[in-house]
Amino acid sequence: MVPASIFTELTMANPLLAKRRALLGGAYRLFYEEPLHIVRGRGCYLYDAQGRRYLDAYNNVPHVGHCHPQVVAAISQQAATLNTHTRYLHEHVLDLAEQITDLCADGLAHMLFACSGTEANDLALRLARARTGAEGVIVTESAYHGHSCAVVQLSTEDTPPARRGDHIVTIPAPDSYRRQASGPEQAADLDQALAELERRGHRPAAFFLDTVLSSEGIATVPEGYLPAAVARVRSAGGLFVADEVQAGYGRSGVSFWGHERLGVVPDMITMGKPMGNGHPISGLVTSADVLDAFTRESHYFNTFGGNPVSCAAALAVLAVMRDEQLMARARSTGAWLRAELEGLAAQHEVIGDVRGSGLFLGLDLVQDRSRQTPATDLAAELVNAMRQRGVLLGRTGLHGNVLKIRPPMVFTREDGSLLLEALADSLAA
Amino acid sequence: MVPASIFTELTMANPLLAKRRALLGGAYRLFYEEPLHIVRGRGCYLYDAQGRRYLDAYNNVPHVGHCHPQVVAAISQQAATLNTHTRYLHEHVLDLAEQITDLCADGLAHMLFACSGTEANDLALRLARARTGAEGVIVTESAYHGHSCAVVQLSTEDTPPARRGDHIVTIPAPDSYRRQASGPEQAADLDQALAELERRGHRPAAFFLDTVLSSEGIATVPEGYLPAAVARVRSAGGLFVADEVQAGYGRSGVSFWGHERLGVVPDMITMGKPMGNGHPISGLVTSADVLDAFTRESHYFNTFGGNPVSCAAALAVLAVMRDEQLMARARSTGAWLRAELEGLAAQHEVIGDVRGSGLFLGLDLVQDRSRQTPATDLAAELVNAMRQRGVLLGRTGLHGNVLKIRPPMVFTREDGSLLLEALADSLAA
Repeated sequence: MVPASIFTELTMANPLLAKRRALLGGAYRLFYEEPLHIVRGRGCYLYDAQGRRYLDAYNNVPHVGHCHPQVVAAISQQAATLNTHTRYLHEHVLDLAEQITDLCADGLAHMLFACSGTEANDLALRLARARTGAEGVIVTESAYHGHSCAVVQLSTEDTPPARRGDHIVTIPAPDSYRRQASGPEQAADLDQALAELERRGHRPAAFFLDTVLSSEGIATVPEGYLPAAVARVRSAGGLFVADEVQAGYGRSGVSFWGHERLGVVPDMITMGKPMGNGHPISGLVTSADVLDAFTRESHYFNTFGGNPVSCAAALAVLAVMRDEQLMARARSTGAWLRAELEGLAAQHEVIGDVRGSGLFLGLDLVQDRSRQTPATDLAAELVNAMRQRGVLLGRTGLHGNVLKIRPPMVFTREDGSLLLEALADSLAA
Repeated sequence: MVPASIFTELTMANPLLAKRRALLGGAYRLFYEEPLHIVRGRGCYLYDAQGRRYLDAYNNVPHVGHCHPQVVAAISQQAATLNTHTRYLHEHVLDLAEQITDLCADGLAHMLFACSGTEANDLALRLARARTGAEGVIVTESAYHGHSCAVVQLSTEDTPPARRGDHIVTIPAPDSYRRQASGPEQAADLDQALAELERRGHRPAAFFLDTVLSSEGIATVPEGYLPAAVARVRSAGGLFVADEVQAGYGRSGVSFWGHERLGVVPDMITMGKPMGNGHPISGLVTSADVLDAFTRESHYFNTFGGNPVSCAAALAVLAVMRDEQLMARARSTGAWLRAELEGLAAQHEVIGDVRGSGLFLGLDLVQDRSRQTPATDLAAELVNAMRQRGVLLGRTGLHGNVLKIRPPMVFTREDGSLLLEALADSLAA
């Protein structure tokens, strides 16, 4: 999610804006002061209605690149052959579940399918409650986990405390930059959260964490934090849900899932955005222990979840990732880009911290390096300035001051050079 | 939804069953005592791995027929061109919102997009709560409205009272067959429900009704029921949500939405299953009044909801409906089929009632016509017998004794004749 101030009010002359306002009302937001009317995409590039090309350094959904021909072909062929549901037998849903569970730790062997990250996290909450018999949830401040009635309350970025149930308790995001304490010390936040839940009469069902801490500013998790945090939750009877909707699918370059970098095996893994390269599909992997507890009281059916076309799209994404070695490429391109950005930081005091891994990088912009005062307005200006220079990126974090670089995984050094040039120019201007 | 007893236990020799059990666990169910392994679909027909053809008289999701070439082409072309989200401007989402809101009553002019019927109903609940400041919900017994944490509690078919929040109160489904009272008399159920909500300390946010009462046994709503019911809810401050996920899109043959037949303009309309002919897309239409209340406290973004590919699929479905006059065909084919089924009922005492409209028909099977005792086991046997004869249908209702005939909208009299022949044979056997 992106702070409100990078969205625009619909006041421009473009007739699409008036039509949009009339039909969609005021609930939706557009990116950029001058919104984009995108008509075509390919690889890391988007093209607007005037034919102008934009380097897409923002969108993680088109994971293997916009309109990858192998994914398009898989969708087209399966859509022409059969699209049904999981109440008939079909190979695709099983092949996909097999390939994904093979990428998970031993014991995380069962998979359920849904349509969106929201549905996956909502389902994880249902399973956690069935397994634990408890209601309480611990999330970070400035978290994003989706938008259903249940999980929008876990999206503390969007939902103020007064609109959250009292079963939800927040902790500060783990952070190596703005907090001085060690990982195990920061994990003591969980003690306070668990005590607060108990004070409110709740036991913990789950601790949800986006393992790349995207909406928390792509914060760097200090060494030793997550094992210590999860141990506390588990000893109080709760489960750990790794929200891999953004972090997963090799995004970090160093492991397929974000939690692997953080030294923990979760009780559930949720995934979504990159799975179908834009086609709506999401899922959840868990253990027999957790799933059986749910199955004893409920069954699960999702009309579109796990249909053959969605699974064909997702199988094609995994095949392209293997064929084009996208995780290894993200590692090497990301390491190079991060080093270059650190070079830029050496020249610009406003870049307080360069962080992230693979193709999910953050630049923490500050007014004052020693005091780390967030440079929120500057971040907003830079996002718009970069858009004017033909490079799309976003910003994130509790203060909206962290530039978010999160391109499709086919992003190259040539693409990175374009980005760096535009960023150097924008910073100079 | 279909009663559990028509699902099978995974005990057969088919290796796909063992793989499915290992990977998906026990939460999913399969149709039929002998599950189907479907590999191909076209129009109203599905084909299994052995090449056997089945007449599909069950699936309402492939609304314009399995693998309709115009829908497949729209998906393929747009997937090859661009798939992004609603934070850039794009024509498709606006054209779709325009076409759909044009099919709604004046004042229902705004549309939001999601991925599944569950997400649409869950969002309707968020909007209803924002508009009313209330929490209470009224639903029928044996309702189905989805499977998220919030709306699975409204799916009283699946969720027993002990697992529903005390903000949910049920009413008996309106019914012209098993209940003797008039429509306005049955609407007095709402008085009791509202009083019960008040007793529990809740005000009503919404009354949700699937306007074809699918999981309630495709019950016939008595004349005058819904206006009287909705007036009571509104006078207590609540909204009426017409769940058109199954009833909408011309299914009844006589109106595009189910609520139009029942004489009410809803505060919100939710839709899903047929929208994309199997491609995951859903939506919600509401008034400026309701949407503005939500927008004052929240914004809305759904990563996949309203993307150009999903909208292209949905635009193609609407175009095919117009080109092939599917609503008019459903009306005439459905009227003919219903008359033929009534003829069958004249010969078979077990058919207690033939009901429904267009291509959503129900046969209420009874052990005794005068006592209307549900013939649940017979319904289960017939569903499996029909499957063995190559005709797919389901069963529904509180007692699982209502045969459900709900084919793709391209179903013809020739298809109907096949169904009738198999049904006559099955009833004779």
